[in-house]
Amino acid sequence: MNELVTLILAAGHGKRMKSKKHKVLHTVCGTPMLEHVIDLAQQLNSKETVCIIGHEREQLMPLLDQKHVKQVVQAEQLGTGHAVKMAASYFGSGDVLVLYGDTPLIDIETLNAFVAYHSANHFAASLISTVLPNPTGYGRIVRNNAGDFYRIVEQKEANASELLITEINSGICLFKASALSEGLEALRNENAQGEYYLTDVFEYLSGKGMAIGAYVSDQPDSLMGVNDRMQLAQAEGYLQRVIIKKHQMNGVTIINPEATTIGKSVTIGMDTTIYPGTILKGKTTIGEDCIIGPDADIADTKIGDGVSVKHSTLIESSVGDASNIGPYAYLRPKSVVGKAVKIGDFVEVKNSTIGDDTKISHLTYVGDSVVGKRVNIGCGVVFVNYDGSKKHISTVGDDSFIGCNSNLISPVTIGDGAYIAAGSTITKDVPPKNLAIARARQENKANWSSKYQK
Amino acid sequence: MNELVTLILAAGHGKRMKSKKHKVLHTVCGTPMLEHVIDLAQQLNSKETVCIIGHEREQLMPLLDQKHVKQVVQAEQLGTGHAVKMAASYFGSGDVLVLYGDTPLIDIETLNAFVAYHSANHFAASLISTVLPNPTGYGRIVRNNAGDFYRIVEQKEANASELLITEINSGICLFKASALSEGLEALRNENAQGEYYLTDVFEYLSGKGMAIGAYVSDQPDSLMGVNDRMQLAQAEGYLQRVIIKKHQMNGVTIINPEATTIGKSVTIGMDTTIYPGTILKGKTTIGEDCIIGPDADIADTKIGDGVSVKHSTLIESSVGDASNIGPYAYLRPKSVVGKAVKIGDFVEVKNSTIGDDTKISHLTYVGDSVVGKRVNIGCGVVFVNYDGSKKHISTVGDDSFIGCNSNLISPVTIGDGAYIAAGSTITKDVPPKNLAIARARQENKANWSSKYQK
Amino acid sequence: MNELVTLILAAGHGKRMKSKKHKVLHTVCGTPMLEHVIDLAQQLNSKETVCIIGHEREQLMPLLDQKHVKQVVQAEQLGTGHAVKMAASYFGSGDVLVLYGDTPLIDIETLNAFVAYHSANHFAASLISTVLPNPTGYGRIVRNNAGDFYRIVEQKEANASELLITEINSGICLFKASALSEGLEALRNENAQGEYYLTDVFEYLSGKGMAIGAYVSDQPDSLMGVNDRMQLAQAEGYLQRVIIKKHQMNGVTIINPEATTIGKSVTIGMDTTIYPGTILKGKTTIGEDCIIGPDADIADTKIGDGVSVKHSTLIESSVGDASNIGPYAYLRPKSVVGKAVKIGDFVEVKNSTIGDDTKISHLTYVGDSVVGKRVNIGCGVVFVNYDGSKKHISTVGDDSFIGCNSNLISPVTIGDGAYIAAGSTITKDVPPKNLAIARARQENKANWSSKYQK
Repeated sequence: MNELVTLILAAGHGKRMKSKKHKVLHTVCGTPMLEHVIDLAQQLNSKETVCIIGHEREQLMPLLDQKHVKQVVQAEQLGTGHAVKMAASYFGSGDVLVLYGDTPLIDIETLNAFVAYHSANHFAASLISTVLPNPTGYGRIVRNNAGDFYRIVEQKEANASELLITEINSGICLFKASALSEGLEALRNENAQGEYYLTDVFEYLSGKGMAIGAYVSDQPDSLMGVNDRMQLAQAEGYLQRVIIKKHQMNGVTIINPEATTIGKSVTIGMDTTIYPGTILKGKTTIGEDCIIGPDADIADTKIGDGVSVKHSTLIESSVGDASNIGPYAYLRPKSVVGKAVKIGDFVEVKNSTIGDDTKISHLTYVGDSVVGKRVNIGCGVVFVNYDGSKKHISTVGDDSFIGCNSNLISPVTIGDGAYIAAGSTITKDVPPKNLAIARARQENKANWSSKYQK
Repeated sequence: MNELVTLILAAGHGKRMKSKKHKVLHTVCGTPMLEHVIDLAQQLNSKETVCIIGHEREQLMPLLDQKHVKQVVQAEQLGTGHAVKMAASYFGSGDVLVLYGDTPLIDIETLNAFVAYHSANHFAASLISTVLPNPTGYGRIVRNNAGDFYRIVEQKEANASELLITEINSGICLFKASALSEGLEALRNENAQGEYYLTDVFEYLSGKGMAIGAYVSDQPDSLMGVNDRMQLAQAEGYLQRVIIKKHQMNGVTIINPEATTIGKSVTIGMDTTIYPGTILKGKTTIGEDCIIGPDADIADTKIGDGVSVKHSTLIESSVGDASNIGPYAYLRPKSVVGKAVKIGDFVEVKNSTIGDDTKISHLTYVGDSVVGKRVNIGCGVVFVNYDGSKKHISTVGDDSFIGCNSNLISPVTIGDGAYIAAGSTITKDVPPKNLAIARARQENKANWSSKYQK
Repeated sequence: MNELVTLILAAGHGKRMKSKKHKVLHTVCGTPMLEHVIDLAQQLNSKETVCIIGHEREQLMPLLDQKHVKQVVQAEQLGTGHAVKMAASYFGSGDVLVLYGDTPLIDIETLNAFVAYHSANHFAASLISTVLPNPTGYGRIVRNNAGDFYRIVEQKEANASELLITEINSGICLFKASALSEGLEALRNENAQGEYYLTDVFEYLSGKGMAIGAYVSDQPDSLMGVNDRMQLAQAEGYLQRVIIKKHQMNGVTIINPEATTIGKSVTIGMDTTIYPGTILKGKTTIGEDCIIGPDADIADTKIGDGVSVKHSTLIESSVGDASNIGPYAYLRPKSVVGKAVKIGDFVEVKNSTIGDDTKISHLTYVGDSVVGKRVNIGCGVVFVNYDGSKKHISTVGDDSFIGCNSNLISPVTIGDGAYIAAGSTITKDVPPKNLAIARARQENKANWSSKYQK
């Protein structure tokens, strides 16, 4: 395999997106389109990845910097040939692959096969084509009688028989660096738009007798460009189907694939079932034999085996094996939940550690705290972690019992096996095995003429 | 353009709906079918809109009265021709358009083009046709060699070659008033059902040598009639796609259009993203750069720019710029939420005003109250607005701090910068900058033999 | 009609499911595939239902025992003919129907029609065929010039003209017991796999001059076998459409069928509307005129007429007419909710009875208790039913008022018309019409230098 330089074209306007955000930063399955394409370039082991930027380029630079992508500015938008030429200093002596920031769906298997096809046949230039039932608007691939690539003809220049051709040019192409340089030098902009078209390089090289390859993809949807929000939603749908199929083939049951949203970096163990309305984002990892959803909204969270998560939101947390979350629970960042824990309904946990076999069943907030093992936290308990100026940490010992509607005014330490009476506001530490109580005595007032009764 | 009178036929039974409710009152995208059609008539600037009613007409009258639609009763169901004749006194001297209460999907652009086509060609009568791949069951449009309308032939009277015709009659039609009157006079009910068919008017007028127009719509789905709940769901799906496409073209990202429900009067600003499971109803307005959903259920609410609403229900409220709602929050009617406010998890707000930069983070109820700016309301706080007989209002000053699990027994006034200790039940006003506290002292009882431990 | 014995083949490996669970135990619309098929056999009034089991058979036995299905072990997997032969002792003297544990979608109407067709025509053997646009991979039904069944030809043995046949064998077949026995005796395994194929019986019987029937189903999707999780999701989708259509035709409005999940045993009354994201499971019964959803998650619950359930989870409970549940409520098992009750936001009820016209509006937990009629339970109330070792029961009388953020330490009895002051922890019984109060006096500390202010 020759050394590979990958160019990503991302200089153009994206007016039809109707957006303040650069077109290629719009996300598909949670990842910006440009990042999908950069990831492909890096999976191809490109010696160098170069992005050609122009309009609103300052929006792209942070991502490109973070991904170590070289940047070349195309100040004026004079066509794809002109854009590629801007990167000429990076071409090197191997091959040059041209991808597009707004064409994020192509899979690495196809790209690898395309590069291998180009290499094995010693083509000067190759492109990926595909067959569309309705090719209107696309450049057609004209082949000679031997079936080899002859030329690309654009829609408006095609004759009647060429218009019947259903094999079209995807735009993705690969060149020997030397052939590309020569072809670009020869480019002319004598056309209606006054632009330099990269596709004209193919005709030039072909005219010079060089061999050209057209690699037919059988996944036309994976080659779609995204130019507006309808296409963005179509791209999302396409990539969702690809991602979901991968999980299905790994042994995950997905009750309603159309009502499930899974990001591309999520992993899910065998025999886990995903119920509808679930959204799995970021670097989320889910174990085996879990029940996830309905309506689980999980981001960047690690979930063990045999866990159930229903109607809950989990962010940047972890949940141990055999724990049950929800319905209607909220794990905020840095919640570390042990094994066989119950985090029940209307419970929020934030930046806290919850020990194994602990139950926090309902209507409770645990913030900035460390809770031991086998603790029972009643209903309506509040870890009062904020005094108006600072956050404080509380610690609750193993085997303790925190009564309902009680407040733990942090910082406070509850010893192992301690018992907090319901309705108490706890401001001082409670030693192990102590009972702490802080409440007023009940009075019943008889013959009280109920003011609320008719 | 001639003066236009629009008739809406809504007299028939809707038995296949299996409903106690009149067929045309069933909703599509939240709006009754009949109201969709009335809205079209009014967008056409009809001089008069007349609804022909019959079965269960008392159900329709409130909507018709509210929309200022004239009502004509067809006591017996003797066919579409008979129904239209009931409204003869309204025909006037211009044109008469016939729409149907159970055909709500046609768009105003098509109707406008249809009226213009009728007018420009001086037709005595016109109809909207469309082409169906499978026209079985529909009346076919027979054209002469010149391609002009010749006649309508019903399925059961069509010969073999007519059965091959795929252009069908939608039923929507437009007449010169004088031609319609003449045609209706000539109608006979000599057919199997003994009914007077409006379509027979076309043959009559054509026989008299009058010019007839057939305007071909390229949106056959928009002409569907709704006769059962499957068709109702199909109509909902069709109109959803139309509505969602409109927002996409305006620069709104809709992650999963198939899992999103948006009413026809909702407006959404550019660069807002709608996550799956979201339902937007009524006169809801959403600003730019918002994150709405997943599972946002919003009705008749005004939302500013840069707002996030996750897994929450909002009804007849407003939310200022840069505020965050949810997950799992509930804004009941007349909640007026300021800018940069946090309404967090398991929080209910009802009939209250919340000042800018205030945080109500969790497990709290604010009802019938006025909360100032930069207030911090702790977890588990209850505004006790109801004493069993009456609702009362409380006021919380700017920069105050309301401790966790405290009760404000309304009516009570908390001064600016006041501080309520956690666990306090507040029954008296708290002056500015005061600390208010109402709680019992904590006792720890050592060597307490825990009754709950084994 | 002859006596019918139904065989269910379920001995094979399900490797493509990638599962620790036997393939036929994977669920479609909440019911294991095998159970769907057993239900069909029993609806056919089979004299005997026999399941041929093999791999991982110990997983299947509990279900088969529970459903009174006879079990025959096929120790070695030597083909479908061999599997059927294992059950020879059950054939009897009537007819033998062969179904498959992984083909759960066929409807009882088709099976009944198939059995009647077989009987009426006195066929020795019959099969269900169907027509597929793309029949590749399936056995084709070859018919003679008279249109009668001639033979089945497998894909790899078909000649060019046979490959064009689009009528395929579903695998479901029915035999006269005597013909089946004779055919199985004659089976040979002289093929590449060395297996005994049930389909070869047809050729044998045909060769003996016996009449064979091929009954063409017009529901090809209902005949699909499930071999991997993609097919499992397709089967789920197909059965969902069947179930949802049934409810639609009964007068239920389903806003978005694609985003709704309904089990096969659920019943729903006329004029009820189901909003998206709703999941109805198990033996759930819903009355007329209800609003269910969005995001209602209901299992094994009985719901009356005119009930609203929004964004809530209900399990093994009942809800009386005209009650409103949610948003964000949780009814755990054995909650018995009366008529015209409000169970509002962030409320959990568990193993409790709630009387008519009672309101539990927000942020409350009612567990293991009996609440009377016309009770008003404030916000943040906790029925403290667990003391760390045991659960206790409380009783709340009619017309009582339970103030906000109060605790009822069970066991405690609140009399009729009693009033609990907000913020009280109630440990003793409260007689009827008494006011009970247990709280500390409020102190305001002036000039308190707020530590949390800058």
